[in-house]
Amino acid sequence: MAKDFPSRAENYAQWYNDLVIKADLAENSAVRGCMVIKPYGFAIWEKIQSVLDSMFKATGHSNAYFPIFIPKSFFSKEASHVEGFAKECAVVTHYRLKNSPDGNGIIVDEDARLEEELIIRPTSETIIWDTYKNWIQSYRDLPILINQWSNVVRWEMRTRLFLRTSEFLWQEGHTAHATKEEAFEETLTILNLYAEFAENWMALPVIKGAKTASERFAGALETFAIEGLMQDGKALQSGTSHFLGQNFAKAFDVKFLTRENQLEYVWASSWGVSTRLIGALIMAHSDDNGLVLPPKLAPIQVVIVPVFKDNDQLTLISDRVIPIKKKLEEKGILVKYDDRDTHKPGWKFAEYEFKGVPVRLVVGPRDLEKGTIEVARRDTLEKSVVPISEIVEYSSTLLDMIQQNMYTRCLEYRKQHTYRVDTWEEFVDVMENRGGFAYAHWDGTPETEEQIKEKTKATIRVIPMDNPKEKGTCVFSGKPSSERVLFARAY
Amino acid sequence: MAKDFPSRAENYAQWYNDLVIKADLAENSAVRGCMVIKPYGFAIWEKIQSVLDSMFKATGHSNAYFPIFIPKSFFSKEASHVEGFAKECAVVTHYRLKNSPDGNGIIVDEDARLEEELIIRPTSETIIWDTYKNWIQSYRDLPILINQWSNVVRWEMRTRLFLRTSEFLWQEGHTAHATKEEAFEETLTILNLYAEFAENWMALPVIKGAKTASERFAGALETFAIEGLMQDGKALQSGTSHFLGQNFAKAFDVKFLTRENQLEYVWASSWGVSTRLIGALIMAHSDDNGLVLPPKLAPIQVVIVPVFKDNDQLTLISDRVIPIKKKLEEKGILVKYDDRDTHKPGWKFAEYEFKGVPVRLVVGPRDLEKGTIEVARRDTLEKSVVPISEIVEYSSTLLDMIQQNMYTRCLEYRKQHTYRVDTWEEFVDVMENRGGFAYAHWDGTPETEEQIKEKTKATIRVIPMDNPKEKGTCVFSGKPSSERVLFARAY
Repeated sequence: MAKDFPSRAENYAQWYNDLVIKADLAENSAVRGCMVIKPYGFAIWEKIQSVLDSMFKATGHSNAYFPIFIPKSFFSKEASHVEGFAKECAVVTHYRLKNSPDGNGIIVDEDARLEEELIIRPTSETIIWDTYKNWIQSYRDLPILINQWSNVVRWEMRTRLFLRTSEFLWQEGHTAHATKEEAFEETLTILNLYAEFAENWMALPVIKGAKTASERFAGALETFAIEGLMQDGKALQSGTSHFLGQNFAKAFDVKFLTRENQLEYVWASSWGVSTRLIGALIMAHSDDNGLVLPPKLAPIQVVIVPVFKDNDQLTLISDRVIPIKKKLEEKGILVKYDDRDTHKPGWKFAEYEFKGVPVRLVVGPRDLEKGTIEVARRDTLEKSVVPISEIVEYSSTLLDMIQQNMYTRCLEYRKQHTYRVDTWEEFVDVMENRGGFAYAHWDGTPETEEQIKEKTKATIRVIPMDNPKEKGTCVFSGKPSSERVLFARAY
Repeated sequence: MAKDFPSRAENYAQWYNDLVIKADLAENSAVRGCMVIKPYGFAIWEKIQSVLDSMFKATGHSNAYFPIFIPKSFFSKEASHVEGFAKECAVVTHYRLKNSPDGNGIIVDEDARLEEELIIRPTSETIIWDTYKNWIQSYRDLPILINQWSNVVRWEMRTRLFLRTSEFLWQEGHTAHATKEEAFEETLTILNLYAEFAENWMALPVIKGAKTASERFAGALETFAIEGLMQDGKALQSGTSHFLGQNFAKAFDVKFLTRENQLEYVWASSWGVSTRLIGALIMAHSDDNGLVLPPKLAPIQVVIVPVFKDNDQLTLISDRVIPIKKKLEEKGILVKYDDRDTHKPGWKFAEYEFKGVPVRLVVGPRDLEKGTIEVARRDTLEKSVVPISEIVEYSSTLLDMIQQNMYTRCLEYRKQHTYRVDTWEEFVDVMENRGGFAYAHWDGTPETEEQIKEKTKATIRVIPMDNPKEKGTCVFSGKPSSERVLFARAY
């Protein structure tokens, strides 16, 4: 792996793109804006899926599957929803191709035009609430706690691998409740679940909070999000949980009979995270040598590289290494023993470093004589020499330490790039020169929010949960404010 | 659960449809031909996915993800492929909606017409081989062993839940190899893997074999399939594995440098199973009382129903039952303890019987006194009384027995409905009156195959693997034949 990509300081955007492609995570496809997720990248997604799926099930949710197509008329039923998604929809208009009469290939068969156009789901609230209508008659049918793993399409004009693509993979939860309180509680339960996943699995500290009205999901009464800080000082929204109130129940006429025999509209939440999380992982942790993956989500956690001159040496090494590999695997650790003779050890070191494998063990004939193994950790690039007898325990502990260290390092970075800002000059300085999060007073109006965005590209990421009340004046308008909100430039 | 559905004998098609809907497996959606897979049905799919995914990985395959869209021009590149799929494609022509100028809802924005139409994948050979072109330069890049779990769309005119829907979920494997032999071996490896899954997990005996030319996958040199026999005497193709030769490599110009430094086209296989397997499960095993699920794929394997008059009784029962539940779970068994007081025991018995839960344990106060539990098995509906001290071991063994019994029963049914047929009268009699598989001589021509299909609706399901050579005369044309092939009416 030749190091033919820029450093973060030289060109952060190019560094990111090169990493994604050269580390075999994903690539652009022949279809505009759509990506191919390659096996190494998909293996990370599978780990993310597996953990989140367990967390959803442990909190009472089940998976189901709804159609990819949404009839155009469903879309119009919730006014702000259609407003939010109409401009970026893939529209199916026909259901057949035919041979061109001039003999030049195939063309769309105009006789096979759909009576009503179908939209490829950009999100599934409408088709799901149309379905829930038939499932819900009484309070006994509630709550419905359903999640769906699926692909969705939003016709993005400017795309970036993992972060913003026309098709992406995600999960979307859609829940139905008898009371406002229960739906709201569900919204927050999932927000907390997402934050726990980000912090404990992705090693990514996040700020939880509510979005302002202008940043809400189209159709929600409240949108909550987790926001992480990337190494270029920009925020990345990493998961959202929406309190939908009765908006979709009203749009699709979903009522239920209460215990008191009253007909009422159902309350709802929806929530999702996507393959964007892989982008967050890379941007938060990786360095100028390549990927740095948190051990808990790494497809390979420990790689063992033998150093040998001939087959006899390799046999001796393998005799010692294979039992170690087995013991590590018994501890649930994902190990790769790369004993290929087609690549030199130096090439392998560079390759696995570049691909972000958390722990590398190197074993040569001299190590065997001394009864030691060289251990390199990816996060700090530090090496140490460990007795073979201790290597299993050492590696296992080291993985935990790396996970912890990556979180701490990320948190430290965030602390260093978080500012309490009280003047417009400071605010502009943070956004334009320093990068990071700025806690600043805001007068609460969308007009000010919009003007700040125009002048500095900064947006209000969230109004943090449990935000302390504090009197002050808006950093832009000077009008009175009762709390600070979190600003940053964002992906 | 009122038994308001016909028996198999009365109306098999209606019986099937009612079972799927009333057992909460799936339902028709608001979108023509597309289904909603409900949580109970999806849980079966998740078990199928989990087992197959492990089997694929154990044989060296990795998962990846390719775009849902296929540019129209890709489609035309492999002549027979486009021929096979062009008539049932969902076509995306636009990427934006807008408000109707007359203020009546939203319409397709004609200014947002795609330069080239996109087809929703009916299968992904074309987009994948266009991608593989960039991945493969030399023999060192081979083999590529990739699988994808995804949704696909084939615009079916007549649909049936799980068996034939416009959108369905499946896995599609796409492999690339340096030699013909290796690609062919891969094709058979997967065929055998599918057969193993059908027999050991679905309890469904299958016949493996090759399809005739007219039944081949569009673009394949050989298609192999597994065929199961349903309880109405019709065959159901339950998985296919295709040897694609160099067809797609030629269509997409995918060449590699051999060890001998020659440029050659790459060899390929592709293979898939879909949510159709759930239809096979139901049709093969279920009875006039409802679903019968094989224990290895049942979302609930053991249900425990307490019989109680008041809370004190329930507490006494729960004290005994909860440790049993825990012990069963420690053995990896999926247990549901339904202690709801909103439904009577009789209702619960009917419900779980209808939903095909393999083993039901019933515990009442008298059972506790006697130290016994009543056990009912779903496959035979037999009941027995078992000492509480033995219940964990008994249940675990019983699950294995049920799995085995379901397979044996299915195999027995198939034996009883498999005929060696030598005259046209017998052939017609089997197809029209008796139902089942007919081994008959065929002259090897597509014309005869077509005429037999027209006259009897029977098709050649497969030319079985390791088919014994046997001289005979075609059951239809009387021309000479060298082997019997397997005929049946089919889904």
